[in-house]
Amino acid sequence: MHYPAGINKAQKKDINYGNRGMTLENDLNETNNYYLIHDIAVIYKKPTPITINKVDYKSRNDAVIREARFKIPSTTDYNGIYKGRYVDFEAKETRSKTSFPLSNIHEHQITHLKKVFLHGGIAFIIVRFICFNETYYLNVTDLLFFLDNNSRKSIPYSFFKEKGHLILDKYNPRVDYIAVIDKLFF
Amino acid sequence: MHYPAGINKAQKKDINYGNRGMTLENDLNETNNYYLIHDIAVIYKKPTPITINKVDYKSRNDAVIREARFKIPSTTDYNGIYKGRYVDFEAKETRSKTSFPLSNIHEHQITHLKKVFLHGGIAFIIVRFICFNETYYLNVTDLLFFLDNNSRKSIPYSFFKEKGHLILDKYNPRVDYIAVIDKLFF
Repeated sequence: MHYPAGINKAQKKDINYGNRGMTLENDLNETNNYYLIHDIAVIYKKPTPITINKVDYKSRNDAVIREARFKIPSTTDYNGIYKGRYVDFEAKETRSKTSFPLSNIHEHQITHLKKVFLHGGIAFIIVRFICFNETYYLNVTDLLFFLDNNSRKSIPYSFFKEKGHLILDKYNPRVDYIAVIDKLFF
Repeated sequence: MHYPAGINKAQKKDINYGNRGMTLENDLNETNNYYLIHDIAVIYKKPTPITINKVDYKSRNDAVIREARFKIPSTTDYNGIYKGRYVDFEAKETRSKTSFPLSNIHEHQITHLKKVFLHGGIAFIIVRFICFNETYYLNVTDLLFFLDNNSRKSIPYSFFKEKGHLILDKYNPRVDYIAVIDKLFF
């Protein structure tokens, strides 16, 4: 199944259980579930935004959407609360070994992260370099610094190594980004 | 177009511009947009959660969902940040003149609001009594107090009058719930 640019593949997990735990999204879902169960944080992935055109309504509990389209998301995919603070981030993976293509993130998502930061929230992106099996936390301030000082259409891997924070690959929670938040903010 | 219980009707606004500003949801969308434009708060409605089964993929920018189903939401519809605080709420309207039926809110949505409160967030419900054209803000603590002390399946209108906070009906922002948050928390 293919999706247009910028559309996340949340729905895949409902079909493709074989991939469970293999994608960043699945890892983050399990991580957020771990945080929730252990009462550490309340952070959820937002549903994929769509515009519904046709619904077959058979009964109160059986409605089938027959025509809908993906919408460009206005915000990021993940948000929630940790130790009273508002947390907001976007997560992407790339197969590139050299850089993270900025086409993966919509401009208004970056604007959104900036607004969250200005309102006192904890805003960042999580980027996984699949080839290295490395997942980085990059604070919005570092992301904005890069964008303000570069005309490049991608962020070099070296920038993540320098300014980002490597998220340790663990068994549980799989992508422990709260450990980075703890280090940076608490 | 009919939707199953608990499914909000966000998508209607894309079709039915005639209703603009008439429903609580439209009023809240305009209110949140007002807060965003005036840099007061960053609060969004979450997309309707669905499970996608079939997608026609014609080109990179033209994918049509051909079969999908509504999912029961895990969380509330609205969340975001105000003055550094995490804000989370559910909004419902009722035609009843006597009470707000609790069947309008899923039990795990109440659990979610309670968790948000315990993690230091600002959690509440907004309920509009359509017949009176009155919209109330009810803090999660008062909601939980009611649930802990009553076996009723609905919250009487009088409880909203006593414990809730009437949100003034204004031109802009239409449903100024931030005014209540200011009064209660800042």
